Amino acid sequence: MTKRNIYLEDIPLDEARAKLAAALAQAGKAGALPGERLPLTEALGRVTAEPVRAARSSPHFHCAAMDGYAVEAARTASARETQALPLRLGVDAFPVNTGDPLPENTNAVIMIEHVNQADETTLLIYASVAPWQHVRLMGEDMVATETVLQLNHQLRPVDLGALAGCGHDSVLVRRRPRVHIIPTGSELLPHDVEPARGQLTEYNSLILSGQAREAGGEAQVSDIIGDDEALLRQALAGALADEPDLILALSGSSAGAHDFTAAAIGALGEVLAHGIAVRPGHPVIIGMAAGIPIIGVPGYPVSAALTGELLVLPLIRRWLGLAEPQPATLEAFSTRKISSPIGDDDFVRVALAEIDGRIRATPLQRGAGVITSLVRADGLAHIPRFHEGVDRGGVLKVAPYQPLSAILETVMVMGSHDPMLDLLATHLRLRSAAGRLVSVNVGSIGGLIALRRGEAHVAGCHLFEPDSGTYNLRHLRTYLRDEPALLLTFAHREQGLMLPEGNPLGITSIADLRRARYVNRQRGAGTRVLFDYLLAQHDISPDDIAGYEREEFTHLAVAAAVADGIGDCGMGLRAAAEAMSLDFIGLTWERFDLAIPRRHLENAGVKALLEALRDEDFKRELGAQSGYRSDETGNVVV
Amino acid sequence: MTKRNIYLEDIPLDEARAKLAAALAQAGKAGALPGERLPLTEALGRVTAEPVRAARSSPHFHCAAMDGYAVEAARTASARETQALPLRLGVDAFPVNTGDPLPENTNAVIMIEHVNQADETTLLIYASVAPWQHVRLMGEDMVATETVLQLNHQLRPVDLGALAGCGHDSVLVRRRPRVHIIPTGSELLPHDVEPARGQLTEYNSLILSGQAREAGGEAQVSDIIGDDEALLRQALAGALADEPDLILALSGSSAGAHDFTAAAIGALGEVLAHGIAVRPGHPVIIGMAAGIPIIGVPGYPVSAALTGELLVLPLIRRWLGLAEPQPATLEAFSTRKISSPIGDDDFVRVALAEIDGRIRATPLQRGAGVITSLVRADGLAHIPRFHEGVDRGGVLKVAPYQPLSAILETVMVMGSHDPMLDLLATHLRLRSAAGRLVSVNVGSIGGLIALRRGEAHVAGCHLFEPDSGTYNLRHLRTYLRDEPALLLTFAHREQGLMLPEGNPLGITSIADLRRARYVNRQRGAGTRVLFDYLLAQHDISPDDIAGYEREEFTHLAVAAAVADGIGDCGMGLRAAAEAMSLDFIGLTWERFDLAIPRRHLENAGVKALLEALRDEDFKRELGAQSGYRSDETGNVVV
Repeated sequence: MTKRNIYLEDIPLDEARAKLAAALAQAGKAGALPGERLPLTEALGRVTAEPVRAARSSPHFHCAAMDGYAVEAARTASARETQALPLRLGVDAFPVNTGDPLPENTNAVIMIEHVNQADETTLLIYASVAPWQHVRLMGEDMVATETVLQLNHQLRPVDLGALAGCGHDSVLVRRRPRVHIIPTGSELLPHDVEPARGQLTEYNSLILSGQAREAGGEAQVSDIIGDDEALLRQALAGALADEPDLILALSGSSAGAHDFTAAAIGALGEVLAHGIAVRPGHPVIIGMAAGIPIIGVPGYPVSAALTGELLVLPLIRRWLGLAEPQPATLEAFSTRKISSPIGDDDFVRVALAEIDGRIRATPLQRGAGVITSLVRADGLAHIPRFHEGVDRGGVLKVAPYQPLSAILETVMVMGSHDPMLDLLATHLRLRSAAGRLVSVNVGSIGGLIALRRGEAHVAGCHLFEPDSGTYNLRHLRTYLRDEPALLLTFAHREQGLMLPEGNPLGITSIADLRRARYVNRQRGAGTRVLFDYLLAQHDISPDDIAGYEREEFTHLAVAAAVADGIGDCGMGLRAAAEAMSLDFIGLTWERFDLAIPRRHLENAGVKALLEALRDEDFKRELGAQSGYRSDETGNVVV
Repeated sequence: MTKRNIYLEDIPLDEARAKLAAALAQAGKAGALPGERLPLTEALGRVTAEPVRAARSSPHFHCAAMDGYAVEAARTASARETQALPLRLGVDAFPVNTGDPLPENTNAVIMIEHVNQADETTLLIYASVAPWQHVRLMGEDMVATETVLQLNHQLRPVDLGALAGCGHDSVLVRRRPRVHIIPTGSELLPHDVEPARGQLTEYNSLILSGQAREAGGEAQVSDIIGDDEALLRQALAGALADEPDLILALSGSSAGAHDFTAAAIGALGEVLAHGIAVRPGHPVIIGMAAGIPIIGVPGYPVSAALTGELLVLPLIRRWLGLAEPQPATLEAFSTRKISSPIGDDDFVRVALAEIDGRIRATPLQRGAGVITSLVRADGLAHIPRFHEGVDRGGVLKVAPYQPLSAILETVMVMGSHDPMLDLLATHLRLRSAAGRLVSVNVGSIGGLIALRRGEAHVAGCHLFEPDSGTYNLRHLRTYLRDEPALLLTFAHREQGLMLPEGNPLGITSIADLRRARYVNRQRGAGTRVLFDYLLAQHDISPDDIAGYEREEFTHLAVAAAVADGIGDCGMGLRAAAEAMSLDFIGLTWERFDLAIPRRHLENAGVKALLEALRDEDFKRELGAQSGYRSDETGNVVV
């Protein structure tokens, strides 16, 4: 058996960071970067590289704070409401607008509203004024030499205003950290090239360069290097000659690629760590060459993105002189049991919604290759090293990706996933910018169980009930028991057989499935219930169906399996068949309902969802989809 | 008396917003802007203008999830740990790397670690494998046609990765809202021109354009227009011809300027509101011309910045299809009584720190002309219309500008403000990026009172005690009573007489002050205590000192008053005199101490402050300042 890298053990994240920090300190690269001088108009969002002192006081002269007349206060002492005091214009009183400098020998302003003009040269006033009334004193805002901004301060719009106000037209800001990104992988193509079978699109460089730019750095992405140590060494040497602050060598998907990276770094400098006890993402490499840190980023996209968050972002912030971001975490109750490897810091992507006054976290798919698990995540739960995970209902510490206000407005839909729920989500969003529908696919029965457990607001289900010839009613009562609930029709959908283009086996009915490899849905799925019913109607035993035991979890997954020749036939929606350019034989129109416990009907998000569901625009658009009918959409079943 | 605009009443903020929204709806401008197609490499941070569906499944073929050998699972059934099964390379088993497509007629991958190579053409395996083991199925991440991103979604790095992964190289994003900014004011100069007396630097355009850009818009700033209605009308007409989404007419400081703006908007379209019941900032104008909204922004910088936050930002976000930001607010206890005009929404800038387990909010200067009140603010407290304010200790709702983690690490220093506290803040920041010292100037005695009330961690004081010839000790006991506290020396500072350059009155001692206009400090200030002591020593009555009753609140303010000829002499620090190019006659070296109740010594920020105070670099830098000695800095007095 291969013994590749058995000598290199994963080290804890903290230890890896400490090693990197020590190496940076040794290379004199641990501190903030030096400054560059920028005009104020280009400095927004940049970070000051020195404390900034006022070059000029603001205002830089005593000036009127009101429109009116400047006077010497002492000369007004005798004015009374009952005894107007005359002032000679241009002698005792001088017209000033707000912001005008006080004329010599004046020290107060009388508001224009408090003056009567007796004639062309005489004003009358009816009250004395105190010295410095309605005067902005020189330096009221900023006095020359005082510190206006501290160093390592990220410049906001008001800061730019203050700098201009105290006499600066430029500011010394931290140079942006420069990150050089080298993607590797013989199977990878740039994202603007259509990949053939066996080729994959390289997109981790988009993720890592985006992260670097968001954090305040500059990113340069070089061409993709094939899996060849010599080529990679050459690319690294070229990058080092450019003297960036950081080099990221992005691995392809092949496990062997890590070895190339480690070997190439080792040839040019030193490998400090190879493997970090973080999940997902442990095949991270940390090295230094020519005083420049090099991070080998794993190929799986979730691992790559987390490596960016955990290692690259803190470096960039440190170089900018900024504190490491401490995302405010929230406590959420897990809707699933989560097992974590005890030796790893485990980062779990979760969907978040508030249900019955508690924030619930539902873990999303955990595969490191599933980038959509990060795209769909509302937050990242951290299960620290030496913890085994949490039970269902246990408390997770989650760093949210969404503001709390968005989480509180989220409608959590679990159960069977209909692709048109995304259309409903779009209409929800069109109604309110804050409208958010999160859909988690757990099958029809799974959705009803989730409702009972208080893990979702809404369940999507299409459970055929042969005894009554209807849908969902008996199941709703079975799972929700006495809980009052609303059952609303979402849509009628055409279910049928999905077949390869041209239907090579000539299948025309359920009976023909005896001679085909079938792609099945999972237990608890409405389509599985329907299929089992149809088998029974045709007196066919599941044992006679090749592939019956192999389960897929969505219509599209079944369609994909048929399209790729894994099976000869599957059952599912016309829409899914058409999406994959498959042939389709319609068998039945089924009803897909939404079940909602009545206690959720006052929830703002659920209310908005019900409005969107009954919106005529939505219904028209839904009904226009192939394989969908919307004539009963929004109708109350019970 | 002038009756200017008495017919126009301030309207509530909500009403103003509603009027603007209605006018926008009428002009067909209420919704999100149309899309423009951008390459993914330029789309970071932009907002999707349509839901994005997968153009290609990801992966788009079944592929190996591990490095190893692809096999047909059924052929491995007989393999046992005790009975190796031979597989022929290239016939039964095919080498694959992670990401490789599965060869025809294979449906599982055996990890390379679980195989022994018997000879060049034969592998041995020791266990059967299940179908699809270590295989990433086509569409595992995204299936062609499924919705990957909703519309009105702000693109993050991982989203760009997902879009590339499912076959996109570009994305339709909302066009950036275009904001045209016209600064007006005859007294204003661009910020890169040195203003003369009577001229002011125009910087509100920097603030408003920065706010527009931060929110996702584009901003264009035109040249400054003088206070002339015809010129402004011409500039507005020019801007309208350009068809921006929004025009901002920035008023200068003169009150009359609002009238020009209103008249010019009225001439070209309609004024919807003139005056909004918001404090600070009410002279806001809202209008529409040629279907384009125009906002007249008040000239005082705090009013201008708040107008941007309250009116401009929500518009830009609406045009981008984003929800209005709902900043998470926190509850803080006010350290001051705040009176609010009952008819206004009042926005109060506050400094925030956690003291004794509670977050305390200290209101900063409230003048609308003091931009540093926004620069220094840690948050904005909103006192809604129909509320009269809060008492000291009352609860404020604050939208924080700082993350909670920064607020929790803040050291609040009240009392006398020494300019070198800013140097200490810099060193605190150099030690830790999160280190933050907030200093609020309330005078020496005010600081000790703040300590007793739990409103500050540290008080700065320099209270001379003639009976003992020492500093601060008796006052500390007077105000803190039995509370155990540490008194540490911050610095010795040279106090003396600040005189105009050349000392025109020939002042050489305190006795000479009888023939000068003096600029005094406020009661409770250490310098005032010292001055009163010196007067008594010279047998001079305060009545003999012209200007004794006029109080300034800082050394620099006294220096500025002398520099500007308001007075002939003041007492203060050598450093302040030199900052203003004044002559200086040294009278004494005084001790400036920091008082810290012992219960705060375990506070992380206070600990860091004590370390910074005793840092040799800090002490060296402090001692090198003119008028400072640091030989006792950090020493414990009691």
